Amino acid sequence: MKKLASELNVSVSTVSKSLRDSHEISADTKKKVLEKAAEIGYKPNPYARYMRHQKSKTIAIVIPEIKNSFFLQVINGAESIASENDYHLLVYITHEDAKKEISIINHLQNGRVDGIIMSLSSTTNDYSHLAECINNNIPIIFFDRICHEIETIKITTDDFASGFNATEHLIQNGCRNIAYLSISKNLSIDNKRMQGYLEALSKHNIKFDKTKIIKCNNDEKTNYQKIKKLLSSSNKTDGVFASIEKLGLITYSVCKDLHLKIPGQLKVICFSNLGTADFLNPPLTTITQPANEMGVAAASQLFKYLDKKGNQISNENIIIKSMLTVRGSTVN
Amino acid sequence: MKKLASELNVSVSTVSKSLRDSHEISADTKKKVLEKAAEIGYKPNPYARYMRHQKSKTIAIVIPEIKNSFFLQVINGAESIASENDYHLLVYITHEDAKKEISIINHLQNGRVDGIIMSLSSTTNDYSHLAECINNNIPIIFFDRICHEIETIKITTDDFASGFNATEHLIQNGCRNIAYLSISKNLSIDNKRMQGYLEALSKHNIKFDKTKIIKCNNDEKTNYQKIKKLLSSSNKTDGVFASIEKLGLITYSVCKDLHLKIPGQLKVICFSNLGTADFLNPPLTTITQPANEMGVAAASQLFKYLDKKGNQISNENIIIKSMLTVRGSTVN
Repeated sequence: MKKLASELNVSVSTVSKSLRDSHEISADTKKKVLEKAAEIGYKPNPYARYMRHQKSKTIAIVIPEIKNSFFLQVINGAESIASENDYHLLVYITHEDAKKEISIINHLQNGRVDGIIMSLSSTTNDYSHLAECINNNIPIIFFDRICHEIETIKITTDDFASGFNATEHLIQNGCRNIAYLSISKNLSIDNKRMQGYLEALSKHNIKFDKTKIIKCNNDEKTNYQKIKKLLSSSNKTDGVFASIEKLGLITYSVCKDLHLKIPGQLKVICFSNLGTADFLNPPLTTITQPANEMGVAAASQLFKYLDKKGNQISNENIIIKSMLTVRGSTVN
Repeated sequence: MKKLASELNVSVSTVSKSLRDSHEISADTKKKVLEKAAEIGYKPNPYARYMRHQKSKTIAIVIPEIKNSFFLQVINGAESIASENDYHLLVYITHEDAKKEISIINHLQNGRVDGIIMSLSSTTNDYSHLAECINNNIPIIFFDRICHEIETIKITTDDFASGFNATEHLIQNGCRNIAYLSISKNLSIDNKRMQGYLEALSKHNIKFDKTKIIKCNNDEKTNYQKIKKLLSSSNKTDGVFASIEKLGLITYSVCKDLHLKIPGQLKVICFSNLGTADFLNPPLTTITQPANEMGVAAASQLFKYLDKKGNQISNENIIIKSMLTVRGSTVN
């Protein structure tokens, strides 16, 4: 700025005010300063600017895992909105570890970001780190794996209705012994999807068998063994509803190893955003979440709030519907 | 810090030096300060700290697209190293747009990051923004889509050998009319993979037919039409080597629509990190890049350089080998 001032023969304060588009400076002077700034390649230091304006121009997205096409597409949506708003996007992965989630959220409370969009880890069962963050004026907007206990904006899909529809679709295609593959009882989405499953069984007078609820976790080998045990049992399962993508893929893997034919011997439906669902053997029937739209919505809501800072963030559920796409894994 | 100082009855300077682990302060005092800091939940402001130390504790990863399992796994690897080093990771997507790439790189030169790891967009054909960034002391380390013209560390796979092996694998399985699906002539990796293809044809005395080089771009519909035209032509193609994942998947899509049987009528091999390659119909033979390892290597090299700042960054090619995994799309 000193160099700019001396080259233009004006004060540093004039340069500074011109760059900030202050009303105290004439349009003519501002134009001269901006032209000279462009000419000498002046780039303002964002942290110096932050120290003045208390804005980091950065938001964070915190996700539980990255090897899942759903989260990938959410990042894509959030990035497009951040970029439109001239903001930077930090990406953090909790790897489904509540301790890591707490450490990340604590680290983000010191001015590094203006706000956070996030999806909970499956092992998080205490929410005080999130409440504290919001109290410290760093807004958090949840998507997908939300936290009911915290008053903020939450973006989800219609998990209950989708769970109901998925299960009813299996029933309508002849299944009577339907298993539900659960990922974590801590997660709101898992509970809602399971409630939809139970409701569909009840509507069709199918007796609920609790051995058909398979509690999976984040260990792939354990999940493989549990699903293998389920599908090897004499108490024949004829349909599988997987609450998340990776459990659907493990089901494919188990069927391959047990020589079980999909959809002849077992029908499979799965929450998934896989781009290759059409090319799988057989093509996978999916409930597809509007992942990109959810990322766009979460980031847009955050910017809406940041623009009118000072207001309290509203407590609101925004629901964007999923789509059931029937493919070869459920239809003969 | 003032609150800490008054609670402990010491000077602000003592608190500040203790928090910075200065040798001027006794171990006993440091311990007291740290304990009190933890007790009252003191969190240093990273930008204030940055203004003193000129470190942002942030690195950026710049990628051309995110809907590709390769880049996803690189982010995963880079994030793990950033997290280990207590660094933050910004993610930028150029969407294969050279202008967007230039704008991102220019924005990153004002202290927001300590360094960058990146893979070029397929439309970038001028590298001055990258040279300028390195001249401004923001190191860039390239991975996958590298820039030969710029002296820095470059992490790639053995693209030439992989292209050779992929093509020879098709030849050994009976193909004589092999097409190569190219994504961009600007990209070093594409050229090397194609050179490997040409070398394998030459070794096996197969005459090169330039109509078998299909120049694809970033528009999915155009690519679909080009590949459809290739596979509908009377000049029968019996093997396809796709330089990137999405071109391999479009080939599957075209074969489905044209009722062409893979591998009976057409054999397909593809650079890909798809987790679902095993479950495709038929399972896809892939050249799998060590994506996670490349992300780890790029970030590790960057931190190695940042740790010994002041030195010039070395001009070095680090090559991590890919693996050819034979599946049903190339073997009857």
